[in-house]
Amino acid sequence: MHSNALKINLFMAEKKENRTELSELGEFGLIEHLTKNIKIKRPGTIKGVGDDAAVIDIKDKLVLVSTDLLIEGVHFDMTYTPLKHLGYKAAVANFSDIIAMNGVPTQITVSISVSNRYSLEALEELYNGLLLACEKYNVDLVGGDTTTSLSGLYISVTALGEVEKDKVVYRDTAQKDDLVCVSGDLGGAYMGLMILEREKQAFKADPDMQPDLQGYDYVIERQLKPEARQDILKILAGIDVRPTAMIDISDGLASDIMHICKNSELGCKLYEDKLPVNQDVMKAAMDFNISSATAALNGGEDYELLFTIRQNDFEQIKAIMGITVIGHMCDPSEGVHLVTDKGEQIPLQAQGWDSFRDK
Amino acid sequence: MHSNALKINLFMAEKKENRTELSELGEFGLIEHLTKNIKIKRPGTIKGVGDDAAVIDIKDKLVLVSTDLLIEGVHFDMTYTPLKHLGYKAAVANFSDIIAMNGVPTQITVSISVSNRYSLEALEELYNGLLLACEKYNVDLVGGDTTTSLSGLYISVTALGEVEKDKVVYRDTAQKDDLVCVSGDLGGAYMGLMILEREKQAFKADPDMQPDLQGYDYVIERQLKPEARQDILKILAGIDVRPTAMIDISDGLASDIMHICKNSELGCKLYEDKLPVNQDVMKAAMDFNISSATAALNGGEDYELLFTIRQNDFEQIKAIMGITVIGHMCDPSEGVHLVTDKGEQIPLQAQGWDSFRDK
Repeated sequence: MHSNALKINLFMAEKKENRTELSELGEFGLIEHLTKNIKIKRPGTIKGVGDDAAVIDIKDKLVLVSTDLLIEGVHFDMTYTPLKHLGYKAAVANFSDIIAMNGVPTQITVSISVSNRYSLEALEELYNGLLLACEKYNVDLVGGDTTTSLSGLYISVTALGEVEKDKVVYRDTAQKDDLVCVSGDLGGAYMGLMILEREKQAFKADPDMQPDLQGYDYVIERQLKPEARQDILKILAGIDVRPTAMIDISDGLASDIMHICKNSELGCKLYEDKLPVNQDVMKAAMDFNISSATAALNGGEDYELLFTIRQNDFEQIKAIMGITVIGHMCDPSEGVHLVTDKGEQIPLQAQGWDSFRDK
Repeated sequence: MHSNALKINLFMAEKKENRTELSELGEFGLIEHLTKNIKIKRPGTIKGVGDDAAVIDIKDKLVLVSTDLLIEGVHFDMTYTPLKHLGYKAAVANFSDIIAMNGVPTQITVSISVSNRYSLEALEELYNGLLLACEKYNVDLVGGDTTTSLSGLYISVTALGEVEKDKVVYRDTAQKDDLVCVSGDLGGAYMGLMILEREKQAFKADPDMQPDLQGYDYVIERQLKPEARQDILKILAGIDVRPTAMIDISDGLASDIMHICKNSELGCKLYEDKLPVNQDVMKAAMDFNISSATAALNGGEDYELLFTIRQNDFEQIKAIMGITVIGHMCDPSEGVHLVTDKGEQIPLQAQGWDSFRDK
């Protein structure tokens, strides 16, 4: 994605020209229209869209399944989310779940529900984003469902993946003294969201204003067009390091390390000074007067991989750019803590989206 | 389901006692609460709820995937849909898609989105219905997602299934002169919906009224608690008859035979006097002054199987109770027609839900 294109499309919820009402097509016509250009890429995809169910030939591997439901006004805000980006992100978020099992995403199904506020062209944009992600990750879109909603846009994506039986990595298999590693950097998607929300408020106050996104390209891209870290799996396989446990960071580091600790029945210590935070994220955090550690710990949607490795693999890992050792697992009696720069131990708490509390 | 229980629960959208606010649990607490009693039944289910993705071991079979998104106010009306029934139906509708491929449903994932109008007890009811269907059909619930919505209830179910490679049945493989068969009887779910809608209007006019459902047990059960016809597959396998093409009747006979015709590039003739209609459906249709053929052709959600067989299999099929031969496939130049009792040929048209037109 070029940042320019991003800027131009922001705050244009929908182009007004070329509007085809969904009622002109009907349900079957719409599905046919949206799926007619889908090409099957994977040899295992025997049947895609167009029958009661998709058909997939997996041979001797394990099948992985992951699903997400994204809702306008809860998970995304149409004011600043271009539909193509939304489709891309919806697909990538599910690929990330498959990758976090050490698997390869192979197929997705997509159910979309829209009110008649959306035009055919809007849905095409959404599908274009989904298909762009499928193209990039070599995944087939094999089915779905398209219906009306009374209001708003709902997207449910289910991803299938595969993994060899002896390669699958779970959340509950971390061992005491394992090192905790994270890919990439953290907090960017969260800071991007903060910026976009700020500009939305300014835009509501003055619709003629130009959004001030100068210097925030990185964090906005982290929010609007995340990637799943398939490349990290290849690197780990290349140096013959198998994570002992793994999860993707969708809810935030604090919540996601808690899943590994709870499921593996262990405690852990993470070190504030080890948390990987990009300069642009630090700058944005300063603008909002929050610490970059807070953004890194509690911000969600980075889709980085959080995993544990045996201490013996440390030498291999430390040479890899883009993977940071941030702590270690310990006895459950020691709890789950962040050790600050000053040496204080702060207990970590799962944040999740706490979406039921916020509303 | 006992009809008495059905009557008592109708028009009680939610019990007021024992209300636990979702905000008391938070997202992770809610997922844990709803999934803690799920027991894995199938040997192929390696990992269910609780990791990034479910893990399934399929061996040498084909994997089938089907997905549906159900939306309050569009696909169901909380006024007369008990949540347990809704969960049951949401699962069964997806099982039916897998069965229509001649497959065995094996796992489902469920994403639910609710506004805080719903209590924990309401979600438990919904889950109880989902799990009851899973129990009956020997399916494992292996994952999902639970989030807030701004309003209303959204349920997305994805079903996985399996089928041996040489047993899968598609929509596009009917042959000219094949016989068209249907299981069970048609139009019941549609007439049940008409009755429930009528009583809803009466209830809105006078909230003290008792709904008049006398004599409509059958059609209401068809609407609120449908079953998927796994038994029919067993019968067909038992007499060694393999359908040449198959689909489940979810949109209505007219729409669904059209899918077989279009995908198989054939025409067909269906005979009005052959359409299987239950006496209670006929009676209900008369009350509403519509022909039972109209209910059978255009009513959806019966979840019966519509399939084609070779003429050679006719002798085997005609002895089977609960399967009716209703017509035959023909050259595409002859079109898709219903032959009426009077010998007139009426072109059939796909109705679907036409949901984009209705709103």
